[in-house]
Amino acid sequence: MNELRKDYILNRFVIVAKDRGKRPHILKEARAVEEGRDSCPFCPGHEHLLAGILNEIKKDDSWIIRVVPNKFSAVSLEGDPHIQMHNKFYTFASAYGTHEVIIETPEHGKELEELPQEHIQSVLKTYVWRIRELNDLANIKYISVFKNRGTAAGASLRHSHSQIIAYNIKPSWISEELMTAYKYLIENESCPYCEIIEQEKASDRRVFEDEHFVAFTPYASRFPYEVWVFPKNHYPNIALLRNEELFALAGVLKKLLLRLDDLGYPPFNLKIHNADLKGENFHFHIEISPRLAIWAGFELETGTVINTVSPEDAAKFYRGE
Amino acid sequence: MNELRKDYILNRFVIVAKDRGKRPHILKEARAVEEGRDSCPFCPGHEHLLAGILNEIKKDDSWIIRVVPNKFSAVSLEGDPHIQMHNKFYTFASAYGTHEVIIETPEHGKELEELPQEHIQSVLKTYVWRIRELNDLANIKYISVFKNRGTAAGASLRHSHSQIIAYNIKPSWISEELMTAYKYLIENESCPYCEIIEQEKASDRRVFEDEHFVAFTPYASRFPYEVWVFPKNHYPNIALLRNEELFALAGVLKKLLLRLDDLGYPPFNLKIHNADLKGENFHFHIEISPRLAIWAGFELETGTVINTVSPEDAAKFYRGE
Repeated sequence: MNELRKDYILNRFVIVAKDRGKRPHILKEARAVEEGRDSCPFCPGHEHLLAGILNEIKKDDSWIIRVVPNKFSAVSLEGDPHIQMHNKFYTFASAYGTHEVIIETPEHGKELEELPQEHIQSVLKTYVWRIRELNDLANIKYISVFKNRGTAAGASLRHSHSQIIAYNIKPSWISEELMTAYKYLIENESCPYCEIIEQEKASDRRVFEDEHFVAFTPYASRFPYEVWVFPKNHYPNIALLRNEELFALAGVLKKLLLRLDDLGYPPFNLKIHNADLKGENFHFHIEISPRLAIWAGFELETGTVINTVSPEDAAKFYRGE
Repeated sequence: MNELRKDYILNRFVIVAKDRGKRPHILKEARAVEEGRDSCPFCPGHEHLLAGILNEIKKDDSWIIRVVPNKFSAVSLEGDPHIQMHNKFYTFASAYGTHEVIIETPEHGKELEELPQEHIQSVLKTYVWRIRELNDLANIKYISVFKNRGTAAGASLRHSHSQIIAYNIKPSWISEELMTAYKYLIENESCPYCEIIEQEKASDRRVFEDEHFVAFTPYASRFPYEVWVFPKNHYPNIALLRNEELFALAGVLKKLLLRLDDLGYPPFNLKIHNADLKGENFHFHIEISPRLAIWAGFELETGTVINTVSPEDAAKFYRGE
């Protein structure tokens, strides 16, 4: 059972994955297997390498998407999910929750964005279904949906997949975002993101716009070629999108990621910033963060990031100019 | 002139290094030159590759430490250092300040910790001297002193060096730390770090203790083998240490880094958390963060970090058990 621990004084949590007992050389070996198809647990016929299969989306009798438990789960449904404090400075709980993997395709080496738009829509529908189901679990405070591609983005397997971690705290960075956005909304009687979308879609950071979505490179981009996607409608959570909107979103992601691939299939993280499904006032969005630079001592100490590609240049690139 | 930009709503800054106009393939090439000794601008005889020499520490007529301007400076003493806002969501200033490099030794390939304790003390004295001088510059709000070793820690050159960025904002992560520690101090009439040191030096996270310093692995370590060094005396800034204490600190760093090297010279960042030289109540400390894992989508979204080496195991390693 892993432990969730808070910093002595800051609102900053860590999952200490004690049980794995990994040593650095093991960490390095894990990185090295990335490309291997023979030992890929996500390929058809390698089901014995999985920790189980939670569900499958099928087409013509074959699976096209699978939901499986993460074999090296960061969290589990064990122990006490409630935060406790010991001796003033030690704040902890069990790292409580579920950690699932969504295998996006049976085809090893096929990228998400290379799949048909309907298939990508099915991946998004799978996110929605998992969010709705995990939302009903007791003691879950946040459901993080993300995708890592490439070693430099923290992926340990090549086969295209996403992950969902549902766990027992509202993470500090998400809290900060939700609270700051909500404060703005109260003070200005308007969602800040609704206003930002209006401004950015007419700025030199505009990337794409259709009936349902707007994509732009954020004014203070922290990653070279970072791009954000917002629904025009003020939805707090992706799970509230209608089918037609999920299809449109699949199209936007396909377009953006295919363009990004022109840079030589760079590593990236894709993260969905959601509020609670019920009751939180927020404007959900997707952030795509290419990992072409490394955060060094300055970034880790200060939180100020040096980005050598301006968002205006990045937007030009996405617009194909 | 680079630009400092704030996120639309969060207290999160970016330096947009527009002028560099780097493209990803150039970013990659820059990484690749890491080992090259022939083209190393920090080696004696290669002074034409430097942007200048600000100062030298000499021994027997030869330089042993050099302070030089960073050739690819993130900040410069140009433009308007004051934060302005445009159109509600665009908050910016010039990326104003100085960016210096401290070449720690003339010897290419020699690590900081492999130098004699007196030499390391001279490097620390150089930090102190630079902090004192930069502190008197107008419009400087924070002086970040850090060291990156290895490509995975963001270093682009192999030759052992540290960096100092003095710039025009108090960075958000440092502000948060200072404010939270100060709030604790007011409420409890005691510095939280003074208390934490007392607890940790008797815990299973203890690493080292002498007359002047305590080292331990933090309870909520965010990096495998992360280790923190605190002075026992409540100094807000490293620049307030006496010579004898700087010598002792050199010894602690030497010991910790030599031990870390047993893991195969892993990449690491070393960061000094300082408060303002005058007037801020804080307990300065040094954080050493080995970079053996990569922050993926979950970490970047939530701020919750998964660490597969427990601080208790890491402390055992440093204690040689």
